[in-house]
Amino acid sequence: MAQLSLPDIPSFDERAAGAARRRQNRLTKPTGSLGRMEELSIQLAGITGQAVPRIDRKAVVVMAGDHGVVAEGVSAYPQVVTTQMVGNFLDGGAAINVLGRHVGAEIVIVDMGVAADLDPHPDLLVRKIGYGTGNIATGPAMTPAQAVQAVEAGIEIAGSLIEQRQIDIIGTGEMGIGNTTPSAAIAAVLTGRPAAAIVGRGTGLDDDGLARKAAVVERALAANKPNPEDGLDILYKVGGYEIGGLAGVMIGAASRRKPVVVDGFISTAAAMIAVTLSPGVRPYLIAAHQSQERGHQLMLEWLKLTPLLDLDLRLGEGTGTALVLSLAEAACRILSEMATFDGAGVSDRKVE
Amino acid sequence: MAQLSLPDIPSFDERAAGAARRRQNRLTKPTGSLGRMEELSIQLAGITGQAVPRIDRKAVVVMAGDHGVVAEGVSAYPQVVTTQMVGNFLDGGAAINVLGRHVGAEIVIVDMGVAADLDPHPDLLVRKIGYGTGNIATGPAMTPAQAVQAVEAGIEIAGSLIEQRQIDIIGTGEMGIGNTTPSAAIAAVLTGRPAAAIVGRGTGLDDDGLARKAAVVERALAANKPNPEDGLDILYKVGGYEIGGLAGVMIGAASRRKPVVVDGFISTAAAMIAVTLSPGVRPYLIAAHQSQERGHQLMLEWLKLTPLLDLDLRLGEGTGTALVLSLAEAACRILSEMATFDGAGVSDRKVE
Repeated sequence: MAQLSLPDIPSFDERAAGAARRRQNRLTKPTGSLGRMEELSIQLAGITGQAVPRIDRKAVVVMAGDHGVVAEGVSAYPQVVTTQMVGNFLDGGAAINVLGRHVGAEIVIVDMGVAADLDPHPDLLVRKIGYGTGNIATGPAMTPAQAVQAVEAGIEIAGSLIEQRQIDIIGTGEMGIGNTTPSAAIAAVLTGRPAAAIVGRGTGLDDDGLARKAAVVERALAANKPNPEDGLDILYKVGGYEIGGLAGVMIGAASRRKPVVVDGFISTAAAMIAVTLSPGVRPYLIAAHQSQERGHQLMLEWLKLTPLLDLDLRLGEGTGTALVLSLAEAACRILSEMATFDGAGVSDRKVE
Repeated sequence: MAQLSLPDIPSFDERAAGAARRRQNRLTKPTGSLGRMEELSIQLAGITGQAVPRIDRKAVVVMAGDHGVVAEGVSAYPQVVTTQMVGNFLDGGAAINVLGRHVGAEIVIVDMGVAADLDPHPDLLVRKIGYGTGNIATGPAMTPAQAVQAVEAGIEIAGSLIEQRQIDIIGTGEMGIGNTTPSAAIAAVLTGRPAAAIVGRGTGLDDDGLARKAAVVERALAANKPNPEDGLDILYKVGGYEIGGLAGVMIGAASRRKPVVVDGFISTAAAMIAVTLSPGVRPYLIAAHQSQERGHQLMLEWLKLTPLLDLDLRLGEGTGTALVLSLAEAACRILSEMATFDGAGVSDRKVE
């Protein structure tokens, strides 16, 4: 069996988090009145080990891969759209490009396993593990060695963004026609819920398509029998190259005390793999948004994460993540830039 | 009776909104997959009359006023904090200053009726209508003429921001110790619900304080008997100077086809006054967030608005608004900057 060597994940720094909480309580506002923005700043302190964390440089890692399971008719769009959309990302015309510019985040595009050779491009990282996965309805998505390779590629990319490009926070995004199906399979294995409770319409399935997709997920579980205790087993049997890569990005960021903003349904499936492989990753994760895709809430509950936004997004690409990178930066700025009661001469004394 | 002359409000431009919706459906993403961001862009098109609206310049108008009802013990903080916090706004140390810098919005501070003379400051607009309102538990907050003056000041400020400073979108914010009590009174009059269903803990009341506050609101309604059909009657009897001013800002912006982002509990009470005075204002309003203050949801339902964020904020100042100004800008950028299926060579054909 292929061996995955995983980096150590440092503990969440309760001391830094406590110092951030005490500072929040001295800022010129009623205690707790900035709600989840305060909690986010405290989490970021515990993640980074800095009582007053800073977020200057932000990146969204968008990983692309194709999926053999599209042969089962589980997607409303043809497979070629994965390749076309990677071209659109590189041209700057996709939603994630616009939102990345808006919030000041770099967009890092990675070919993890698109089913075509892409033209070389200075902004494209190629870590291609295969030309699309196998059809999970009838057999494994990839070999165990390929699953190891996918996770390791993600760890390496997170490391180089943090070490060489001084990125302070990483958001996840993905593109892969058909990738809600392996994501639903991962969620079904780990939550123990039936496929029908998890599969959603993806980019636009009708009722028949939805029923077919649930049946395909059940077939994938019956054909592969993934072991819910073993993240690598789940990943190689019913996962995807970009899903493994994103799990690696999360592990790599956590190992370097950097926060990761998890986007929607597919990224959340990757987070479930990451936490199964490395349970210490969990406190480093921030859930961006509640996706419209059915089952996403069950997955977030399994991860014990509460999403920050609920804007009915269901696009992927890291679009929810980009918006939350900006919120995370704002949360840090509140902690570092607001005046304290003492400093501003504002009365903190309550009326008796 | 004092006469309020209100500007005409143009109709929401359904044609521009329809054009924006058709453009959204040609962008390189599944139809509707950006959820509320798409709806927001379509609303902004209908408001501005531009099929592809632009938001470049953003402002938050923060209006401050004091409230005689603090004599009833309805606030956890002493009245002097209103004046101190205006100083903090002018020094740039409050939460709204930080968030304004983060999203690139100007912050406009207005003294509508603080109970002290404030030191002159180049960034402070003085439209002082009185030194705090009267105690609504025993009589009217102000005279009808003062209510007219408050609304007219808001209309004038919105007009000058739009005409002279080319502001594309205005967010509302406020500061006023005790101002959740008149806001709750306004909400009780207009929704017809009992005070106990509406009052909340404000900046930090305990259970006794909460019960006292509900009783104060009931006394204010009994003492003043505001007419629920007459916005000016409600405003002068149980409102506040900053609440009237913000209602005027909303009317002034709508009259010039500019969107207004409504912050939390107090701003929403101002929106209820604005819509009662000028029903045509409603489609120009965007609800920023679901406040933690009890009753806010009932008020939003009365306005038929669905908030964009739910981050457990309960600070006011326009903090929720600032975050939503950035979302509105992002929504416009998506509409204007994303590639179309045709333009990017991405297949829009679904699998048959």
